[in-house]
Amino acid sequence: MSASFDLWRDRFERLRTNKAFELTVITIIVVSALLIGAKTYEEEVSRFQAVMLWLDVAVTVFFLVEILIRMAAEKRLRDFFRKGWNIFDFIIVTASLIPMDDSEMVLLARLLRIFRVLRLVSMIPELRLLIAALFKSIPRMGYVALLMFIIFYIYGAIGSFLFASVDEQLWGNISLAMLTLFQVATFESWATAVLYPTMEHYPYAWIYFLTFIFLNAFIFLNMMIGIVLDVMQKESLAIELETGEGEAAELHGLRDDVRELRAQLSRMESLLERRS
Amino acid sequence: MSASFDLWRDRFERLRTNKAFELTVITIIVVSALLIGAKTYEEEVSRFQAVMLWLDVAVTVFFLVEILIRMAAEKRLRDFFRKGWNIFDFIIVTASLIPMDDSEMVLLARLLRIFRVLRLVSMIPELRLLIAALFKSIPRMGYVALLMFIIFYIYGAIGSFLFASVDEQLWGNISLAMLTLFQVATFESWATAVLYPTMEHYPYAWIYFLTFIFLNAFIFLNMMIGIVLDVMQKESLAIELETGEGEAAELHGLRDDVRELRAQLSRMESLLERRS
Amino acid sequence: MSASFDLWRDRFERLRTNKAFELTVITIIVVSALLIGAKTYEEEVSRFQAVMLWLDVAVTVFFLVEILIRMAAEKRLRDFFRKGWNIFDFIIVTASLIPMDDSEMVLLARLLRIFRVLRLVSMIPELRLLIAALFKSIPRMGYVALLMFIIFYIYGAIGSFLFASVDEQLWGNISLAMLTLFQVATFESWATAVLYPTMEHYPYAWIYFLTFIFLNAFIFLNMMIGIVLDVMQKESLAIELETGEGEAAELHGLRDDVRELRAQLSRMESLLERRS
Amino acid sequence: MSASFDLWRDRFERLRTNKAFELTVITIIVVSALLIGAKTYEEEVSRFQAVMLWLDVAVTVFFLVEILIRMAAEKRLRDFFRKGWNIFDFIIVTASLIPMDDSEMVLLARLLRIFRVLRLVSMIPELRLLIAALFKSIPRMGYVALLMFIIFYIYGAIGSFLFASVDEQLWGNISLAMLTLFQVATFESWATAVLYPTMEHYPYAWIYFLTFIFLNAFIFLNMMIGIVLDVMQKESLAIELETGEGEAAELHGLRDDVRELRAQLSRMESLLERRS
Repeated sequence: MSASFDLWRDRFERLRTNKAFELTVITIIVVSALLIGAKTYEEEVSRFQAVMLWLDVAVTVFFLVEILIRMAAEKRLRDFFRKGWNIFDFIIVTASLIPMDDSEMVLLARLLRIFRVLRLVSMIPELRLLIAALFKSIPRMGYVALLMFIIFYIYGAIGSFLFASVDEQLWGNISLAMLTLFQVATFESWATAVLYPTMEHYPYAWIYFLTFIFLNAFIFLNMMIGIVLDVMQKESLAIELETGEGEAAELHGLRDDVRELRAQLSRMESLLERRS
Repeated sequence: MSASFDLWRDRFERLRTNKAFELTVITIIVVSALLIGAKTYEEEVSRFQAVMLWLDVAVTVFFLVEILIRMAAEKRLRDFFRKGWNIFDFIIVTASLIPMDDSEMVLLARLLRIFRVLRLVSMIPELRLLIAALFKSIPRMGYVALLMFIIFYIYGAIGSFLFASVDEQLWGNISLAMLTLFQVATFESWATAVLYPTMEHYPYAWIYFLTFIFLNAFIFLNMMIGIVLDVMQKESLAIELETGEGEAAELHGLRDDVRELRAQLSRMESLLERRS
Repeated sequence: MSASFDLWRDRFERLRTNKAFELTVITIIVVSALLIGAKTYEEEVSRFQAVMLWLDVAVTVFFLVEILIRMAAEKRLRDFFRKGWNIFDFIIVTASLIPMDDSEMVLLARLLRIFRVLRLVSMIPELRLLIAALFKSIPRMGYVALLMFIIFYIYGAIGSFLFASVDEQLWGNISLAMLTLFQVATFESWATAVLYPTMEHYPYAWIYFLTFIFLNAFIFLNMMIGIVLDVMQKESLAIELETGEGEAAELHGLRDDVRELRAQLSRMESLLERRS
Repeated sequence: MSASFDLWRDRFERLRTNKAFELTVITIIVVSALLIGAKTYEEEVSRFQAVMLWLDVAVTVFFLVEILIRMAAEKRLRDFFRKGWNIFDFIIVTASLIPMDDSEMVLLARLLRIFRVLRLVSMIPELRLLIAALFKSIPRMGYVALLMFIIFYIYGAIGSFLFASVDEQLWGNISLAMLTLFQVATFESWATAVLYPTMEHYPYAWIYFLTFIFLNAFIFLNMMIGIVLDVMQKESLAIELETGEGEAAELHGLRDDVRELRAQLSRMESLLERRS
């Protein structure tokens, strides 16, 4: 029985690494994505509702079979769950299996199916690399984000205390004020819709807005420079290690040569001295 | 006959590489561009319609003659079609030769003539270099563009499902939703025209918009850093190769010197040993 | 008595450097920040006014005790005031101690308490480093800021002279004109709200706006490049010093080896010559 | 007479290079700038008109005297006109001397006086360096600007042909179309005020706008990368030259040492051979 099990595992293994199989999976993901997109055109959907439903079930079944094959291809089941991307795929596939008939739940079921498009990322190696690179840069940005948040919080509190009476919708409480400040930070109608109406009541409000914009731009600029510097440091270190090996090895070899020369000379010198 | 043919080819060859001829071609291209621009001033055009028509024909004939000269200057005709820029010029010139008298076709004929301005790019070597550099950077941006598209697609689908009832024109289907998201990504009226009206129905809509903006900014920033890193890697590799030759050669020569020293010493040692 | 004083100082010293104590301080700062945020929700505040007041007093007392402990932990009091961040903390804590009962002063008291959030920066070392890096880059940007201000001033004066009659609110005097120009520099409604209404009276006003935008973009771009260049120069200098030590030391050692070789050879040569 | 002339020239020379004199000139320039700014507050000006007029004359006279001193300090007058910044100062000072009493000319006279603020740039060495750096980067950006202009021209012509009937004010002729495209390139109301009204008549207009935005962003991004690459190339070349001298010199000295070693050994070898 174990032999036939191994035989099947090998077959699944070969199927999983098959290029044609990979392409089929990618095609099905794209079809599933198009299906989701098509559902947003409501008039068209109502006509082809039966076909859509059938396709939906077919895609769900295919994804289930595909993930079962990939699980069966592993020697031990927990090997499958060791890779982050496998867990990611597993969650997406199982989430869409939960039956949701309740009309309220239909929306949630739809939303869950949208995330199937993300399986494209786990299938294409280049995209997986890109995502891995993105995750690596998160800690680097963490403290800058915290600093930014502190600035938003302080300005939000000040704005809320000073301008709440001017416009309740923009400055009513600290949450609204921070959202308004985010709008100001993206320069969206910050002068015509936020600054000028405020200046009618507080003529010196421009100080508040200009310092906020300059502080933000200043921190953002310095963050950018900091990241470029960081990247460069790592880069030049890598180059150093690489080229260092070549040149340092050459230098090292040279020193060894010179040391051997000295040993040879010492032998000769002792020979000469003995004779004299 | 072949001799006289060669004679003519030489003459055309000399004409093509003539600086004055090149300048004339560039001048005619600029005149043709101004002509196209002038046609957009409709009142003025109606007065000088006869002159315009005559100039149009003159420019078309000049371009035809010029490309025929450049073809005749080549030893074999297919040498002409080997360069991408020649094919580019050939298509632009022949496309404007197709007679289009139909009133419907007049617009298309006009549009085709606009692309004559692009011949300026194929005439000026510096612009040709610039365009070549742009084309080289396309693959580098391909996968980032795909990742961006996936994010737009997912957010488009979610937005269309959730907010279609709020504003049919902004979120009616996935295409409209993606266009709206592009508007949000450029920060154009994203808060006043998109976020605030949505928040009146869905108070937590700001989560959708803020995550979208941060994701976009995050990927864009990382892409920029990635490209700078990429450019730097290539650059430092080129420097390494260049300077490596200089210093490595010096080190290599030094090692050869030391090796000869050792050979000389070995000879001396054997001489001494033989004598003792 | 001095002994018991030293004993107490040691205890305070140990308390100050205690991780748990640091975490408690950070927690209290966050609580104080949340308290400030909560006060902006006016309805909720009125219900819990007694609790809020009590919490406020508790936070103020805690901060006072904490700074007194940190002062007592120093050998001499003036050592405490030597660090910039300590002075910063001291000002923030003492400022919130000033009793302000006057209804007019309540706003000022509230604003002063907001700045307590900044104590988060002085407590977390990574944020302190970030702020130090920001301060270092200020002089580098000083002259560019002056140049920018000169350009804003000149364009402001011109705009005020030419367009004051078009829109008194946008161009009434040089201050308003400079604020309008800042709005133009952030691209906020610069065309629809500023350029087009002006062009109705001065059809050539686009020259004024386009030159201003290009000048700004040009200086900003060059400033960015200048900063990157600056950062790179410092970086490569640091790398040079670092790697220089490694490789230069190797080269130096090699030269010393070769010099010893020569001394040995000279000894041998004189030995040989003496014998012959 | 020549002696007394030399004496005076020396005095002027000393005066010109005097720090206190330089500071006075800078102060007067700032006063002159404030005067110009003050004139834009019309109500205030009418009250102090006499004072303003007197101050205006005083500043003009001071600038005249200052430039005469700087001219007299030179050995030959044409030495003065050899420096670009001197010519710049001379033009600004003489331009404000032309009497303009005509009410029409008053505006021009005022505008000319604004440019006096620019003398701040020619007085402060750091700003002069900054401007020199800006001028150096102009050719580098020339061809990119030409390419951008070609793209704007082609899209302007297409836009004018297609959309002139939709909105005469935005797309009436190629000039208006190019201005509208510049507005689109700065993302100002490009969707709400330009794209959506156009899409009501031409549903596929988004292709035109999106390709334009992507083309622009793509060229701009590549230009930025190109400039960074350019700056880095120059930088690394400079580093190479600098460090190359240090390490290469060390290597060169080492090779000379080894060569001397070989000469010594050859002498010893011949000595040994002679004896045997």
